[in-house]
Amino acid sequence: MILVHTPNPKEVATYLELFRAAMPEQLFVDVNEACLNAVRYLIVWGVPDGLIASLPRLEAIFALGAGVDKLLGRADLPDGMPLYRLLDSGMAGQMTEYVRYGVLGYQRNMDVYRRQQAAGQWRMLAPRPPADVHVGILGLGEIGTAVAKALVRDGYPVSGWSRSPKHIHSVHSLHGESGLEKLLETSQVVACLLPSTPQTRGLLNGERLSLMQPGSMLINAGRGDLVDQNALLALLNNGHLRCAQLDVFAVEPLPHGHPLWHHPSVTVTPHIAAITLRQEAVAQIVGKLRQLARGEEADGRVQRQQGY
Amino acid sequence: MILVHTPNPKEVATYLELFRAAMPEQLFVDVNEACLNAVRYLIVWGVPDGLIASLPRLEAIFALGAGVDKLLGRADLPDGMPLYRLLDSGMAGQMTEYVRYGVLGYQRNMDVYRRQQAAGQWRMLAPRPPADVHVGILGLGEIGTAVAKALVRDGYPVSGWSRSPKHIHSVHSLHGESGLEKLLETSQVVACLLPSTPQTRGLLNGERLSLMQPGSMLINAGRGDLVDQNALLALLNNGHLRCAQLDVFAVEPLPHGHPLWHHPSVTVTPHIAAITLRQEAVAQIVGKLRQLARGEEADGRVQRQQGY
Ligand SMILES: NC(=O)c1ccc[n+]([C@@H]2O[C@H](COP(=O)([O-])OP(=O)(O)OC[C@H]3O[C@@H](n4cnc5c(N)ncnc54)[C@H](OP(=O)(O)O)[C@@H]3O)[C@@H](O)[C@H]2O)c1
Ligand SMILES: NC(=O)c1ccc[n+]([C@@H]2O[C@H](COP(=O)([O-])OP(=O)(O)OC[C@H]3O[C@@H](n4cnc5c(N)ncnc54)[C@H](OP(=O)(O)O)[C@@H]3O)[C@@H](O)[C@H]2O)c1
Repeated sequence: MILVHTPNPKEVATYLELFRAAMPEQLFVDVNEACLNAVRYLIVWGVPDGLIASLPRLEAIFALGAGVDKLLGRADLPDGMPLYRLLDSGMAGQMTEYVRYGVLGYQRNMDVYRRQQAAGQWRMLAPRPPADVHVGILGLGEIGTAVAKALVRDGYPVSGWSRSPKHIHSVHSLHGESGLEKLLETSQVVACLLPSTPQTRGLLNGERLSLMQPGSMLINAGRGDLVDQNALLALLNNGHLRCAQLDVFAVEPLPHGHPLWHHPSVTVTPHIAAITLRQEAVAQIVGKLRQLARGEEADGRVQRQQGY
Repeated sequence: MILVHTPNPKEVATYLELFRAAMPEQLFVDVNEACLNAVRYLIVWGVPDGLIASLPRLEAIFALGAGVDKLLGRADLPDGMPLYRLLDSGMAGQMTEYVRYGVLGYQRNMDVYRRQQAAGQWRMLAPRPPADVHVGILGLGEIGTAVAKALVRDGYPVSGWSRSPKHIHSVHSLHGESGLEKLLETSQVVACLLPSTPQTRGLLNGERLSLMQPGSMLINAGRGDLVDQNALLALLNNGHLRCAQLDVFAVEPLPHGHPLWHHPSVTVTPHIAAITLRQEAVAQIVGKLRQLARGEEADGRVQRQQGY
């Protein structure tokens, strides 16, 4: 028996329909239909307290998303419980669009024109070709690699930072603390696409953000806790940073009245940069279930000691 | 002798330097150095009154831009005077960026998120893949064709409208009045990249703009007089159109206090979608001058009876 759960019952119903159609030989149930003793797999986003402890035969958990920081942070996650996450499944393409929109807007001065428009000001700015806008990408995983390749095709010089060195055509691979500093110092746009782990939380603190070039832009679509929001606000307010496009926040929804909501240089989006596409998620998880059924290791297993 | 003129003396100095370096065998001069009787060619943007009449030996005019509506509208342009315009010369790439920014913003609801942000509202909208956003391009010339091809690569279904039928891979070619109506009725984003001619001025009047889909977007980077601005404002105000991105206006600079400046659904840019890149313009005009010197016809000759 396979239990499917998200905080939205309508969404669960949609998922159940898709899973049952894709894998009729298996029994997919929601939390009301489930015989908890019989549940072997849990497919989930947003685990309610007590659920995991109520499943004595649980063999593995499948996250309905790419980031598993919340799940790994739970005290009730048994040690050694295999945990699988979604790889891309339509998210890399969406994230590419999200980052491209930010980079293109920066390159073409659309944020400056928007401020000029608010002031009723008609003033042309010198055009800047893509070759003059260096983009630094923090995180070259499933998603960051796809974004980096697309930006290279668009004509931007691209650097990327990851734990292990990478060989991606035309992408300058950096790692370690000195690599991070180099990326921050040489990029006009920094796009953060890292997971939240004990090693990355608070990574972009005031000191590191200050290394960014005067007049540069920060895009954060990784996780909110990677960035010190107060330090970011201070650097936007003193004009060191030109603008920011933020999809993720330390607290979500971004609290009412938070200064980021109304900052003239900040674009706030409600965690929509790359949404799990249900059809693709179902197809991918069914693939993983079949791998396990054949006795193979399934793709996208989270390295729990690394935190992602 | 070849006279170079624009309204900006510093720009003229830059152009003279570039032309002299590229074609040392020719004499390039500004309006103060020129012996008017000896000028055979005029390279120009923004012709001052009286200049053309003062050049008795003038054989041809080279415009430092793609659109020649202002030049063709002059009463002092001699009948039959050969007129050449710039083909692409870096403008097609810039226009692609400008239109892509608008289309991407529409597809990813960035205009809606911006309005939600102003209201402090955190609400996710359903994601829409590029395949669900039909883009219609008015004008498939040097610039429109490049934009259409790029949007096809981005995954959008693309239609285009031109005087003559076209065969561009994956672009649905339309023409004539019925083709125009079809494009307007079937596109979520309409991008106008037409020249201003007696046939196209006022083309997007209230009646035709009303054919656009409810909730759709207009991008105009052709010329301001192609669109009835009051009709556009009325359709934005009554919610028929969702948003507009406008680079060109009936009167430029857009007059102080004009309602387009402060409309919440309108992005105003100061005629910067595709700026003439000086190096490329010089290289292209030098190429044309060499063609004429060899007794050949030069590229980019304006068909004066067609108006572009
Ligand atoms: N906003 C949204 O809508 C949205 C949607 C989906 C995902 N996300 C976020 O995006 C993140 C990335 O997703 P993904 O699928 O690309 O993950 P992934 O494949 O696991 O990639 C993570 C990348 O981060 C690097 N990394 C991890 N820890 C690091 C450290 N301490 N130092 C340097 N680099 C480190 C990894 O380096 P190695 O390659 O060397 O392992 C890898 O390149 C997710 O975890 C999630 O937080 C956000
Ligand atoms: N905002 C900016 O920064 C900026 C910069 C550069 C250019 N522009 C504007 O962009 C315009 C287009 O430039 P371009 O180099 O692509 O020009 P182009 O090569 O001359 O192309 C013009 C296109 O419009 C079509 N067309 C002309 N009259 C038409 C009519 N009556 N009905 C249907 N289609 C018609 C032509 O059809 P055929 O192919 O059948 O001839 C052609 O496809 C310029 O004229 C200028 O106004 C704006």
